[in-house]
Amino acid sequence: MCRIVKEKFPNSEEDLETKVKTSYVQKEKQIIGKHIYGNLYGCDASFISNESALKNLVIEAAKAAKMTVWDTKAWKFGGVKGGVSALALILESHIAIHTWNEFRYATVDVFTCGDKSDPMLAFDYIVSRLKPKHVTKHFADRSSE
Amino acid sequence: MCRIVKEKFPNSEEDLETKVKTSYVQKEKQIIGKHIYGNLYGCDASFISNESALKNLVIEAAKAAKMTVWDTKAWKFGGVKGGVSALALILESHIAIHTWNEFRYATVDVFTCGDKSDPMLAFDYIVSRLKPKHVTKHFADRSSE
Repeated sequence: MCRIVKEKFPNSEEDLETKVKTSYVQKEKQIIGKHIYGNLYGCDASFISNESALKNLVIEAAKAAKMTVWDTKAWKFGGVKGGVSALALILESHIAIHTWNEFRYATVDVFTCGDKSDPMLAFDYIVSRLKPKHVTKHFADRSSE
Repeated sequence: MCRIVKEKFPNSEEDLETKVKTSYVQKEKQIIGKHIYGNLYGCDASFISNESALKNLVIEAAKAAKMTVWDTKAWKFGGVKGGVSALALILESHIAIHTWNEFRYATVDVFTCGDKSDPMLAFDYIVSRLKPKHVTKHFADRSSE
C-alpha cells in the first residue's frame, strides 16, 4: 500500500525559493500544501529558553506568511534536555518550534495551505530572530493530487 | 547564514525503516529528533471528516510510538476545501494530521524526540486506520549536532 517517493531537493537557497514560489499552479480541485522545515544550530541562548518570546514569535511568523492564527500554545520543559515547544495552529496547517536550551538547538516547521501564504517568509522570519550560527532548510510538497 | 542540505532518501520501505531504526547511536550530548511525514491519497471518507475520531487517532498513534501526550487539539473546518486538523502535543515533539474531506486527502507528521520513541509506528498506525489508496512517506533527521 505504501509507496516511497524521493523528494527532489534544490541545490541552493535561490533554487529552494524558486521551487516554493513557482512550482504551484493553483488548480481548482487541488489542495496546495507547502512545508518548509529545518534545524537551527547555535541559536540565541536567551531567546530559545523564553516561553513567552517564542509564543509571540510563532504569531509574528504566521503574520509574516499571511497565515491566520487559530490558536497558539507554548510549554517549557526542564532538565538537561529541557527547552520550549511553541505551536501556532492555523487553518489546516501549523507552525511548530521546538528548542533545547543547553544545546542552543531548535527545530522549525512551517506548513501552509493554499496559494496565498508563503511558508518561506515565516521560516526566514523565525531564523532572523533566533540568530542561529547555521541552518538546514528543506521543502516538502504536501499537496493533493 | 543558511546552508541547504540535501536529504538522502531511502529507496524502499525496508530502507526507510532501517534508516530510522539504526542510523542513530544515542550520544550523551545530542538531541535525537526523528520526523516521519507523508501524504495520504484516497482516504476513508467518513473517518477523515470525523473530528473526534481523528482526535482519538492521534492519541492512539502516540501510544503506539511510546510518546507521552501532553495535550491534544482538533478542529473541523467547513467549505469546499474543509476538513479536520488534529494535533497531539508531545514533550518536545508533535503529531499533526490535516484532512480535506472532498479530496479524501490527508497529511501526517510524526515528530519524536529521544531514542525510545519510534515515529514509524505512529505513522503506520495512522495509515492503517485512514486506509488510503496510496501513501508517500519521508524521513527527516531533526537531531542536533
